[in-house]
Amino acid sequence: MPFSVLVTGANRGIGLELTRQLAASHSADHVFATSRNTNDCQDLKDLQKKHKHVHILQLEVCDESSYPRLVREVQDVVKDAGLNLLINNAGMARKTPLAEVTSDEMVQLFNTNSVAPLMLSKAFLPLLRAAAGSAAVQDKMSWRRAAIVNISSKLASMEDNTSGGFYSYRASKAALNMVTRSLGIDLRPEHILAVTLEPGWVRTDMGSQRANTSPEECAADILSTLPKLGAEHSATFIGRKGDSVPW
Amino acid sequence: MPFSVLVTGANRGIGLELTRQLAASHSADHVFATSRNTNDCQDLKDLQKKHKHVHILQLEVCDESSYPRLVREVQDVVKDAGLNLLINNAGMARKTPLAEVTSDEMVQLFNTNSVAPLMLSKAFLPLLRAAAGSAAVQDKMSWRRAAIVNISSKLASMEDNTSGGFYSYRASKAALNMVTRSLGIDLRPEHILAVTLEPGWVRTDMGSQRANTSPEECAADILSTLPKLGAEHSATFIGRKGDSVPW
Repeated sequence: MPFSVLVTGANRGIGLELTRQLAASHSADHVFATSRNTNDCQDLKDLQKKHKHVHILQLEVCDESSYPRLVREVQDVVKDAGLNLLINNAGMARKTPLAEVTSDEMVQLFNTNSVAPLMLSKAFLPLLRAAAGSAAVQDKMSWRRAAIVNISSKLASMEDNTSGGFYSYRASKAALNMVTRSLGIDLRPEHILAVTLEPGWVRTDMGSQRANTSPEECAADILSTLPKLGAEHSATFIGRKGDSVPW
Repeated sequence: MPFSVLVTGANRGIGLELTRQLAASHSADHVFATSRNTNDCQDLKDLQKKHKHVHILQLEVCDESSYPRLVREVQDVVKDAGLNLLINNAGMARKTPLAEVTSDEMVQLFNTNSVAPLMLSKAFLPLLRAAAGSAAVQDKMSWRRAAIVNISSKLASMEDNTSGGFYSYRASKAALNMVTRSLGIDLRPEHILAVTLEPGWVRTDMGSQRANTSPEECAADILSTLPKLGAEHSATFIGRKGDSVPW
């Protein structure tokens, strides 16, 4: 069966590493890697030189007006096979404490971290449905049939929040978790899996160099976990090794 | 000790009933009731005729520019005693399914249900701090010392979400829960309690006439529960009878 993947925010960090490992493993026929600025993503361009099945597409995730163009670009490549896996990885972090948080920042992070993954999932639903429909029935639900993976954060866990603060980031990622929960439930009859995944503390621009996990290790763990996911994981919150994370 | 309360969205539904019962019980020295349109809140005006300690104040919760004026109006009444209890009750509901949800609706509900309670809590922090500071030390944390009560929803519970849908409403109320969780943690050293409370399914414009609980019963339960709250309840999600609700 054909297998294609799209990763948002693929120009750096976890997104770049997921793209790199997906490309290198040749498990996917097509790897679509989106970047806000396709002039400024040398790592992706180097990767594309080695792997012709990597496609670099321009996407500012909050720019909904560009979604039809993006979906068309993907459709032109995958044709009737659809898109199997959408990884909503692009995100924005802020550490703003109570005294400094503003409504503008709250909305900005909500737009980027919660609304964009929802609206992009909606935009790609026709292609995800095509993929789900063309899969063999014995596949049931799986990452190779049709799945949405939303990259969340440990900071999205209500229960795990014992240190407070991070208002805009926590609220936006908690909202993303809720969106994913509803997506997983609503799309179950169509055999489209949806999970929210917290990658751990990773050495990226977002996680800082003090973080305990390399992007390589993080992406490898995620790509080891995805093949293990089934219907029972849909609408749940998991860690990169597949462990259940409290809401 | 003086005791004053502010309830947002007090012109109807649960907000009106909370205001009515607080006014009638004479437990509070001052009950501030806010309404978007102070020309169109006859129930509140009738209540004020009977109870001189009810104050009707204009507030559109998303209009941050009006917060300084609102805080000043409260301050002019309570003076150095501060405000003891802020009930962020104003909210907006939508039942939009996946196929119809838009980014505009996502942001509108997030602004009303999550951002406004956070920013209004910030605006009233000086008055809440004044109240917390002027209370006797043996009060520890209590609704009569200083508290923020955010009216949430059962639909905000990730675990309880087994039916999907309601994207904008669920996401905004989950975000409110997270905001409250951080507020409760951050304000604990200042003896200001913060809880998120789901009122049940109430016969209001929002809950419809099919709901199983009257606004009177709902408000009575909430006002029976608040006096029982202590430090251990801060930063938690509770039902109107004080039961713990899963995140």
